Amino acid sequence: MRISSYVTDGGVKSYGLVEGSAVRDVGEAFRNRFPTLCAALAAGALADLTDAAASSREVPLDTVVLLPPIDNPDKILCIGLNYMTHIKETGREAPSHPSIFTRYPSSLVGHAEPMVRPSVSTWFDFEGELAVVIGRAGRAIPEARAMEHVAGYTCFNDGSVRDYQRHTTQFWAGKNFDRSGSMGPWLVTADEMGDPAAQSMVTRLNGEVVQSTPISDLAFDIPKLIAYLSTVCELLPGDVIATGTPSGVGLFREPKLFMKAGDRIEVEISGIGTLSNPIVDES
Amino acid sequence: MRISSYVTDGGVKSYGLVEGSAVRDVGEAFRNRFPTLCAALAAGALADLTDAAASSREVPLDTVVLLPPIDNPDKILCIGLNYMTHIKETGREAPSHPSIFTRYPSSLVGHAEPMVRPSVSTWFDFEGELAVVIGRAGRAIPEARAMEHVAGYTCFNDGSVRDYQRHTTQFWAGKNFDRSGSMGPWLVTADEMGDPAAQSMVTRLNGEVVQSTPISDLAFDIPKLIAYLSTVCELLPGDVIATGTPSGVGLFREPKLFMKAGDRIEVEISGIGTLSNPIVDES
Repeated sequence: MRISSYVTDGGVKSYGLVEGSAVRDVGEAFRNRFPTLCAALAAGALADLTDAAASSREVPLDTVVLLPPIDNPDKILCIGLNYMTHIKETGREAPSHPSIFTRYPSSLVGHAEPMVRPSVSTWFDFEGELAVVIGRAGRAIPEARAMEHVAGYTCFNDGSVRDYQRHTTQFWAGKNFDRSGSMGPWLVTADEMGDPAAQSMVTRLNGEVVQSTPISDLAFDIPKLIAYLSTVCELLPGDVIATGTPSGVGLFREPKLFMKAGDRIEVEISGIGTLSNPIVDES
Repeated sequence: MRISSYVTDGGVKSYGLVEGSAVRDVGEAFRNRFPTLCAALAAGALADLTDAAASSREVPLDTVVLLPPIDNPDKILCIGLNYMTHIKETGREAPSHPSIFTRYPSSLVGHAEPMVRPSVSTWFDFEGELAVVIGRAGRAIPEARAMEHVAGYTCFNDGSVRDYQRHTTQFWAGKNFDRSGSMGPWLVTADEMGDPAAQSMVTRLNGEVVQSTPISDLAFDIPKLIAYLSTVCELLPGDVIATGTPSGVGLFREPKLFMKAGDRIEVEISGIGTLSNPIVDES
């Protein structure tokens, strides 16, 4: 099952099941009970959504504005250095623990929406990532049970303003500019995705491959990340874990390769699809 | 005006104006329009709350469970190293930019509620701080206009699990354990507080002074912090900026001084009051 969140051409926020080039607008029937996909996940209502799909209105995907599949998560937890290829290009050693920073929802747009280069910087970089969406709450989740807490997966672009990221040791400033990252195009449920470690990811800038990795190269795999994060705090339905980016980011290229207005950046993950965003300058 | 958020002995979330040892439960009249103090701030309704106080029910403070004054903020932005006394004790140089990490609301309790030492660590440290609460939204706020965006101030204890904080370069893990920090006891409005730089702060562990500083020693003052943060993202009403801690934290003492069950930690700021919390072990 592939579930998108969106704003209809009538200006209504909703969510629905993607089938080809259309979406079954199950949110129309469920909005009173579950105003968002996040609320539906929290209620364990995914099966209800499936049942309702056949009788739901079919809306062409090209008439809606896609939002991040979870557009109001409690937490967006990003893993800083989680592919050895990327760790090596930054000049760092293999980590003993996952490195974590956060993004606010205001920093993300959905598929096809423009990502915005802020006027204060030209160092606007891409980071293709696999994002995990939590389906069931938990604290101190053991690795062996971790995958039971996963609702599904989506593509994530951890767009980074590199000079701000380097202002101090803490990454936050470079990772939270309004509309500087993206997530989507939809949530692929865990049953449909199968083993995420069997998938691969490619990032393309204007059609050219700039990052390419098997997901199995993650330094800390998904169960390890869930176990560590849930040691610190309770994970809630809808929480997003962006699992980190592989090598190839623009900052460590010679010459550096940053995104500018008119560019198109894409993150494609097998088993999910392609998250594609044009770049615009802050107006 | 001093405004607290709390849960009444009837189990109802509310907020009200503190007068001596009681609180005028203005939330009772306003909850339909403004379910939380954060919503009242966003609506610019502070004057309405004052007008309603005289006709509101008086509730003894000792019958309510105090919450953080803003218990559902969009953002809790913490400044990592912002007093030269603390920067020196960590062995660092004077910073060129504010160092920012985030806490989630789940990591904070209100005044008098127990702060919880997690079972995975004994390195549970205190950090007394002045917190600024945003009253008016803004992006790219110039320093000269920054104070117009401040609703008020409160005390903040940026309780830190030091071994987790040191797992990587990113502070997040050490700063987000459930109920490991605190905020309160109330929001003191900007008009009542006057110039925060004229105030001073003391942290006491079991009655003994462990941190003491004039607020004027901030490396980045409040207008500079608001200007920098709002360059990155829009600040919203209710957003909290924890402005950083001075020297004296337990980690850099010889021997180290950490908090344990049965301790009491207090952060007192002149012009606000005292935020006091007992320490308990995670059960």
